[in-house]
Amino acid sequence: MSIKVIIAGFKGKMGSTAVDMVKGDADLQLVALLDPFAIEKEVDGVPVFNDKADLVGFDAQVWVDFTIPKVAYENTRFALENGFAPVVGTTGFTEEQITELTDLSVQKQLGGLIAPNFAIGAILLMEFAAKAAKYFPDLEIIELHHDKKKDAPSGTAIKTAELIRETRSYKKQGAEDEEETLGGARGAEFDGFRIHSVRLPGLVAHQEVIFGAEGQGLTLRHDSYDRISFMSGVNLGIKEVVKRVQLVYGLEHLL
Amino acid sequence: MSIKVIIAGFKGKMGSTAVDMVKGDADLQLVALLDPFAIEKEVDGVPVFNDKADLVGFDAQVWVDFTIPKVAYENTRFALENGFAPVVGTTGFTEEQITELTDLSVQKQLGGLIAPNFAIGAILLMEFAAKAAKYFPDLEIIELHHDKKKDAPSGTAIKTAELIRETRSYKKQGAEDEEETLGGARGAEFDGFRIHSVRLPGLVAHQEVIFGAEGQGLTLRHDSYDRISFMSGVNLGIKEVVKRVQLVYGLEHLL
Amino acid sequence: MSIKVIIAGFKGKMGSTAVDMVKGDADLQLVALLDPFAIEKEVDGVPVFNDKADLVGFDAQVWVDFTIPKVAYENTRFALENGFAPVVGTTGFTEEQITELTDLSVQKQLGGLIAPNFAIGAILLMEFAAKAAKYFPDLEIIELHHDKKKDAPSGTAIKTAELIRETRSYKKQGAEDEEETLGGARGAEFDGFRIHSVRLPGLVAHQEVIFGAEGQGLTLRHDSYDRISFMSGVNLGIKEVVKRVQLVYGLEHLL
Amino acid sequence: MSIKVIIAGFKGKMGSTAVDMVKGDADLQLVALLDPFAIEKEVDGVPVFNDKADLVGFDAQVWVDFTIPKVAYENTRFALENGFAPVVGTTGFTEEQITELTDLSVQKQLGGLIAPNFAIGAILLMEFAAKAAKYFPDLEIIELHHDKKKDAPSGTAIKTAELIRETRSYKKQGAEDEEETLGGARGAEFDGFRIHSVRLPGLVAHQEVIFGAEGQGLTLRHDSYDRISFMSGVNLGIKEVVKRVQLVYGLEHLL
Repeated sequence: MSIKVIIAGFKGKMGSTAVDMVKGDADLQLVALLDPFAIEKEVDGVPVFNDKADLVGFDAQVWVDFTIPKVAYENTRFALENGFAPVVGTTGFTEEQITELTDLSVQKQLGGLIAPNFAIGAILLMEFAAKAAKYFPDLEIIELHHDKKKDAPSGTAIKTAELIRETRSYKKQGAEDEEETLGGARGAEFDGFRIHSVRLPGLVAHQEVIFGAEGQGLTLRHDSYDRISFMSGVNLGIKEVVKRVQLVYGLEHLL
Repeated sequence: MSIKVIIAGFKGKMGSTAVDMVKGDADLQLVALLDPFAIEKEVDGVPVFNDKADLVGFDAQVWVDFTIPKVAYENTRFALENGFAPVVGTTGFTEEQITELTDLSVQKQLGGLIAPNFAIGAILLMEFAAKAAKYFPDLEIIELHHDKKKDAPSGTAIKTAELIRETRSYKKQGAEDEEETLGGARGAEFDGFRIHSVRLPGLVAHQEVIFGAEGQGLTLRHDSYDRISFMSGVNLGIKEVVKRVQLVYGLEHLL
Repeated sequence: MSIKVIIAGFKGKMGSTAVDMVKGDADLQLVALLDPFAIEKEVDGVPVFNDKADLVGFDAQVWVDFTIPKVAYENTRFALENGFAPVVGTTGFTEEQITELTDLSVQKQLGGLIAPNFAIGAILLMEFAAKAAKYFPDLEIIELHHDKKKDAPSGTAIKTAELIRETRSYKKQGAEDEEETLGGARGAEFDGFRIHSVRLPGLVAHQEVIFGAEGQGLTLRHDSYDRISFMSGVNLGIKEVVKRVQLVYGLEHLL
Repeated sequence: MSIKVIIAGFKGKMGSTAVDMVKGDADLQLVALLDPFAIEKEVDGVPVFNDKADLVGFDAQVWVDFTIPKVAYENTRFALENGFAPVVGTTGFTEEQITELTDLSVQKQLGGLIAPNFAIGAILLMEFAAKAAKYFPDLEIIELHHDKKKDAPSGTAIKTAELIRETRSYKKQGAEDEEETLGGARGAEFDGFRIHSVRLPGLVAHQEVIFGAEGQGLTLRHDSYDRISFMSGVNLGIKEVVKRVQLVYGLEHLL
């Protein structure tokens, strides 16, 4: 039997990509769409709602949310209170809100997922990097993005570095008498290791973690070319939350 | 307090590299060397034995064995019976022998390790590849070795492929109407995915597992340049077996 | 002063991308569009023609052609006869046609370009690979494409291999007693070296040429993500043909 | 007929590797060895000299020199004056010395080579990078070395960057509002592009130049694992200088 899915924020980029994904999977059934400003009454036979209040008592198991930070918390709360397991890609939740929603999910015996990143590959890379750092404390991160990106290093690189810090024994890498003849050559320092940010046209979002040890090397790389890559994570989230009885923060907890 | 280590087969390539490694680690203490054909009575103050029988009652915790298949089983048995936790890099054990030695270890409440591969990086790569294959069933393996290598694919590639098969949902990859205009272009087929073997001078032993999914890719690569890379695995083995009460087959069980 | 450009076949995928490219470059000026089936009379102020005969005497220097094989030869001939330097991306010319058009260009003292491939990066890779093969006769090609691709190896890989064959001293690579325990592992053989074809979802069109020699390796890789990458080649073609007095076949002759 | 070779500085690391290389090539014949402090009178039948004066009138065509900066200039001068084409790997020549030796070579109608770098792969990479930069002005250099290396970026990276500067149209890369949230993340700036230095155990000497453009990327990588890689450059040098009538500075002039 297929899982019945509501999608909130279905007119945004991520929301509309999610609509296509759900429609394309025979194990899922799209049963309702929500957007306060939508004019259409239905899309390909699926009813469109402007107000979430109208979804009270609706027959569905999962609430996918790609709305905006301002309403996502209220939406997630509403989903849990009405028996829909939430799968939320909107960011901006505070720690207090996550704790509160987790408690509510336990009380309601509902699974749920709030995920800042749905790219399974990126999450696996982080997990693998953190494990490898236990055995290979010498490593450097190279992240590569398109040249319109403003911040360096990328948020994903910082997140990866933080996870590595938890498992790696601290070590200041590089030669003791190391010297930069051109400033910045050795990259940014984070906990004794280095992060390098490459920015070039044509690139999208890529990350490499290189580990080195006597006589060997281990390299982990993730390439992200398109927003569609997030959809396998959303799909996995939908199929996992219906089996769970507690909301989690981070897709890694469902892998 | 340092761990007291005996090394059997100390005159071979791996054995002598192990001698250097143990001497170079302040947490380990080399206390005896064994080789039936050694003439010297000691090496840098460490006594050399020709007959393992003379080591009965010797004060040591770990028995490192890089001998030859013919004697390794007897040596491992002897080690367990005399209270030395074995760390064995010699290959050629039968399944029956491993079961028997494992049972003996449990009875003696001793840890132990028999490992066909001590390269931690290679073992992590296999573990990561098997996990990633759960979520990314589309993958190809490229292994690259020096051009004197006789067999293709490499043993490590086959082992990796077998581990992937256990976690991956079977899928025949590639286009249905795929056609090789030059025979062999698509590589060797293994359980619906492909393995490619590159042979070039200058290379040593390298392996890449490439996963692809809509909009993203994940690549795992291990480079092995030198036998010395095995020593971090031997070192880890020594430090782990003294904390355990059962022999294991495969370094992955200590990671 | 800007170069005045006519685009034939402006309604196709390549043609319309070329329209955008010409409009976006201040050094170029789009002066006419041609398509036998176009209904519109102009596009953003640029006149649209259905019949090339109406372009006799038109004030333009370059004729960009992304039509179909059936008409491309006639179009190129027409361009040369009427003083427009042709830049042609349509394929399917015979050797006789190319020779004839080249002769005509010399007679008219006009530059011109017929190019089966406008990706500058792919062409540089081929040129570099052919040069490197002079010094490094040991090499393998790995080409990677999306998993809907039917033929293996790719046309670009074959072309690259042919160019390499011209500069490389023949050598049968790999160990003499090499053995495939899984058929196809060593890839396709071409002139004594190997070509491997990887097919995975998420990939677009990528090619790697790996050279190996004692103690060193050289790797050349081209990644093609999008048709837009061809436009820098078309742009270069337009700017170069106006300086030349002979038509060439292949963008490499203008690099 | 084989080329007769003298090797000066035959007891050093490079010199002795060169001895092995010459002996291993049937097209070359080792006829004399020179070292002021050598005690032996011959090595495998090849006469050893302590004083270059004793080599006046000796029957040889090429003088390979891996001595020390202090004597290399005098040696090279001596070689040219006595009819031996010099192939010199010793560094430290001044521009004036190179000019003077080049003039002398022309006068004597002798070829010759003074090369700061004999790794053909590294030199090809520089040449290719400089050519690609003409068409792809957006690029970054990543150089990777063992973690005992003191200076960053490497000398080879600086040299590569200088060659690129000669062909590339100046451009300040990266987003205009780019911001480093961790200092150094974007690497060292050189003429508007970036250089990143990675330092890890297990690595030897590697360099990657990554070019990016709309819809495509081009990556050039050289891996140097062992000093032996220089020998193919020395070999090529010996075989080329006997065909030339002028000394050149830099192996690239013989490629």
